[in-house]
Amino acid sequence: MSGHMTPEEFRRYGRQVIDWIADYHEKIESYPVSSQVRPGEVAGGLPVHPPERGEGFDGLLADLDRVIMPGITHWQHPDFYAYFPSNSSGPAILGDLLSAGLGVQGMLWATSPACTELETRVLDWLAELLDLPPAFRSGAAGGGVIQDSASSACLVVILAALHRAGGGAPARDGIAGRHTLYVSSQTHSSLEKAARVTGIGAANVRVVDVDPVTLAMDPRHLDALLAEDRAAGAVPVLVCATVGTTSTTAVDPVPEIGDVCREHGVWLHVDAAYAGSAAVCPEFRWVNAGLADHADSYATNPHKWMLTNFDCTALWVADREPLTGALSILPEYLRNSATSSGDVIDYRDWQIPLGRRFRALKLWSVIRWYGAEGLREHVRTGVRLARDLASWIRDDPDFELFEEPRFGLVCFRPRWDGLTGEEGDAATLRVMERLNASGDLYLTHTRAGGHVLLRMAIGGPATGDRHVRAAWERVREETGQVRLGGRAADVRG
Amino acid sequence: MSGHMTPEEFRRYGRQVIDWIADYHEKIESYPVSSQVRPGEVAGGLPVHPPERGEGFDGLLADLDRVIMPGITHWQHPDFYAYFPSNSSGPAILGDLLSAGLGVQGMLWATSPACTELETRVLDWLAELLDLPPAFRSGAAGGGVIQDSASSACLVVILAALHRAGGGAPARDGIAGRHTLYVSSQTHSSLEKAARVTGIGAANVRVVDVDPVTLAMDPRHLDALLAEDRAAGAVPVLVCATVGTTSTTAVDPVPEIGDVCREHGVWLHVDAAYAGSAAVCPEFRWVNAGLADHADSYATNPHKWMLTNFDCTALWVADREPLTGALSILPEYLRNSATSSGDVIDYRDWQIPLGRRFRALKLWSVIRWYGAEGLREHVRTGVRLARDLASWIRDDPDFELFEEPRFGLVCFRPRWDGLTGEEGDAATLRVMERLNASGDLYLTHTRAGGHVLLRMAIGGPATGDRHVRAAWERVREETGQVRLGGRAADVRG
Repeated sequence: MSGHMTPEEFRRYGRQVIDWIADYHEKIESYPVSSQVRPGEVAGGLPVHPPERGEGFDGLLADLDRVIMPGITHWQHPDFYAYFPSNSSGPAILGDLLSAGLGVQGMLWATSPACTELETRVLDWLAELLDLPPAFRSGAAGGGVIQDSASSACLVVILAALHRAGGGAPARDGIAGRHTLYVSSQTHSSLEKAARVTGIGAANVRVVDVDPVTLAMDPRHLDALLAEDRAAGAVPVLVCATVGTTSTTAVDPVPEIGDVCREHGVWLHVDAAYAGSAAVCPEFRWVNAGLADHADSYATNPHKWMLTNFDCTALWVADREPLTGALSILPEYLRNSATSSGDVIDYRDWQIPLGRRFRALKLWSVIRWYGAEGLREHVRTGVRLARDLASWIRDDPDFELFEEPRFGLVCFRPRWDGLTGEEGDAATLRVMERLNASGDLYLTHTRAGGHVLLRMAIGGPATGDRHVRAAWERVREETGQVRLGGRAADVRG
Repeated sequence: MSGHMTPEEFRRYGRQVIDWIADYHEKIESYPVSSQVRPGEVAGGLPVHPPERGEGFDGLLADLDRVIMPGITHWQHPDFYAYFPSNSSGPAILGDLLSAGLGVQGMLWATSPACTELETRVLDWLAELLDLPPAFRSGAAGGGVIQDSASSACLVVILAALHRAGGGAPARDGIAGRHTLYVSSQTHSSLEKAARVTGIGAANVRVVDVDPVTLAMDPRHLDALLAEDRAAGAVPVLVCATVGTTSTTAVDPVPEIGDVCREHGVWLHVDAAYAGSAAVCPEFRWVNAGLADHADSYATNPHKWMLTNFDCTALWVADREPLTGALSILPEYLRNSATSSGDVIDYRDWQIPLGRRFRALKLWSVIRWYGAEGLREHVRTGVRLARDLASWIRDDPDFELFEEPRFGLVCFRPRWDGLTGEEGDAATLRVMERLNASGDLYLTHTRAGGHVLLRMAIGGPATGDRHVRAAWERVREETGQVRLGGRAADVRG
C-alpha cells in the first residue's frame, strides 16, 4: 500500500520544498511575468487518470517545474503591476506553514482557543497599527475578524446591516419588500455580487453619482437617493464608501457620507481593501477620516499591501451584536460549555463558512518580523516608486498622467494625436497586450475620464527602482512600436 | 529598518519550521488532546501592543511553544474523536506550502492558468476515484470546483438553484415572494445559515420528516410538502439530501428523493461532506446511489476524511450554467482576452469570494502520494477501527450501541439503570466532560433516539488499534466513576 508520509520523509521533502521556494524567489526574474500558455496547455501536460498506486514526492516536484510553472502568472515577480499587489513574504509563508502543520480548525473557541484568541489579539494590534477607532477593538462592543476576502467581508456586513434594519426579520422570514444598497460606479463589483447573494437583487443597488474629476461619491446625491427610496417605501440597508477604489484609487468623502448615513439611520461600511494598509504610516492616516464617528464596519486586506499571503482580509465592526445575530445558529453537536458561558468568541458566527483555518498565525508572523517600522517602510517604498513613475510620465509629452498617485497605483495613457477616441483606446490596449505578451512586465487597464487607461500598481516586496525604470522604458518602447504601426490594421486589430 | 526575509533566512527558518512540524507530530501524544486553558489565558500571554521594530523569527517559535501550544486542541492527535476528523497529511502540508510559496491568486484563468487547469483536472480525478457520474466531469456540461467549506458549497448551489427556478430574476430583482428549501431535522445547520444569507429566510426552510429509527428523510413527506408549498404559491428552490449526517451519519434515500425532485422540478443537492470520501472504496460506492439520475450538485470534503488539509471542499454541478449565471459579473478591470474567448473557466464565477488560493496543489499532492490504493486503505482503517469499537460496545451490558457504524462514526451511551432519562443524559454528558478534561481523548455528543449519545468519530491518520482500545478503556473507567457518584450532586451538577 501507499502509506502515510513518515516524519523523516516529511523532513526530507519539506527541506526540498523550502529550498524550491527559496530558489524560485531567487530566480523569479527569469520567468515571463505573465504565463504564456494557451487554454488547455497545462491540462494537456497532466495525466487524464489519477494514479492507482502512490508515487512518492519526487515526481510531483518534477511536474511542478515541467507542467505547472509554465502556467503560472508570477504575482510575486517584481514586474507584476497588474490589479493590486497580492503581497507574500517569508514570514507569512512560514506562518501559514505552521498553520498547515498544526492542522487545527477554529470554528469555535473550544476547538482551539489559541486560534481564536491570537486572532482577536492580532486584529487589535492591527487596529492599533492603523490607528483605527477604539470601537473596533475587542475590548469594546466591536472587534475584528479575518475573512477570506473583502467580498466576503462586505457580504457579512450586509447581513448584519439587514439584521439591524429589520430587527432580525430578514434572517427569519426572508427578504420582504424592496431593500437597497448604495454604491458608486467606482465601488468594487463584490457589492453587486453580495446584492445577488443576499436576495436584495442587483437592481436594488443604487449607484450614487461621482465627482467627474476625482471619481469620489457625491454625498448630496446619496442623501437624495436615500430620501427618495425611503419615501418610496424601500428599506435602505447599507452604504459602501470606498477608500482607494479598484479602478483608480479614488477616495470617497467618508465624513460627509457618514453624516448622511447617520441622518438616515443606514449602516456605513468602509471598503479600504487596498489602501487601508497605508495607514501604518502617520502621513497616510487621513485615509481613516470619518471612521471614528461614522463607520459601522471597515475592511482592509493585509493580503494586498501588507506582506501577508492571501487569504487575509481584516474586517472590523463597531458592534458585533448584529453580525452574530445574523449568523449564529447552534445545533446540538456544536454545544459546549465555553460557548454557553458567553465568555468567548466563536468566530464561526462572524463568517459564512463554519470551519476556519488558523490564519492569524501568518499575520502574527508578519507583524513580528517587520514591526511597525518595517511595514511603514514597505508602504513608503511603493509610494515613492509610484511617484517616480508618475513624474516621468508627467514629463513625457507623449503620455498623459491621469492624476497624481495617492498610493502605489499609477494610471496613465499614451497620447494618440490624430486618432479618434475609440482608435486611441484600441491602441492603448494594444500597447498593454504587447507588453503582457512580452513577459517583461504585466499590467492591466481600466476606463476613466473617457479613456482606456493603463494601470501600474506598484507595491510588490521585490519591486525596486530598477524594475520600475525598466518597465517605464518598455512602456515607451511598445508605445513607439504601436505608433509606428500608425493607423494600420495593427492598431485596429 | 526591518527588511524582507532573505532567501538564506527563509531557508534557515523554513527548515526550523519543517522540523518543528515533524517534531510536533512525533510527540503529539504527549499533549492533552483538548486544550486545558481558560478563556483569556492565551491572550494573557501575548503582548497588548504590536512591536515597533521587527523581532526576527526565533521569538515567534519560542512563543509558539510557550503561549500558543497550551491553547491548541490537537485535531491531528490520534485520540481526537470529536466532530468529524479534519484530516491533515504530509503531502497535503507540503502542497499547501508550495501554494503559499508561489503566492498566486487564481480568480481568473488568466491570473495563473495552472491554478485553474490543475483544479479542473484534479476534480476530474477525484470524480473518477469516487466513481461520480459523467455529468460532473469538466468535459460535460458540469464540472468541479474547490470551495472553502460545505457551507459555502451549499450556499452557491442554492444561488444556482434560485437562478434556474427564477430565470435569473432573483439575482436581478431580489427575492420576491416565498421561496422554500427542504431539509430534514438531521441536515447540517449550514442549510439554515444559507437560507438566512440568501434572503430566503430560516422560516422557509421546510423540515421533512425522518424515519424514527434510521433518521433518513421520508420522500413521501417531501413530496407532500412540495405539493403543499407549490399549491400555496411558494417557489420550491432546493432539496438537500445528506449522505452521512453530522449527528449520526444517517443516509437519506437519494434515489427516491431524486424522483420526487424531478417530478417537482426542484434542484437536488447531495451533501456528503463527511461520507463521500468513502466511495474511493468499491464496497462503499452505494453512497453514490441516485447521483447519476438525479443530483444537480454534490459536495464532499477531502478536508474531512481524505487527508487534505482544511480548507478543501469538492463541489460538482451537473450543469455549470446556472451557477455562473448567478455569480458572474465582469467589471472593466477584470476583462481579458481569455475570458472573452469563452474557452476558459474563471473560477471566481463559481464561488462567493473574488480571490482564490491555489488549493488544487495540496489535493494533487495527496492523490499522487497515496494513489487510489492509499486513500482506500485510509478509509478502510477508520471503518475497521469503528467496527471494532462498536463490537466492544455491543458486547458490554453496561453500554448501548446506537446503531452499527456505517462509516467511521460510532454513537453510543452508557446505560443508566435507575436514572430518569434526563438524569441519564446529564450523566452521559458528565462522562464526556470528564474524558475531555482528562486530556486523554476528545469526543463530542449528539441527541438521537431520545437520548444524549457520545460520538466517537474515527478516521484520523494517526489513530490505530491501541488508541481506540485505550480510548474505550477510558470511557469505561470514567463511566464507572460517574456511576460510583450515583445519583449524587456529581451526576446532576
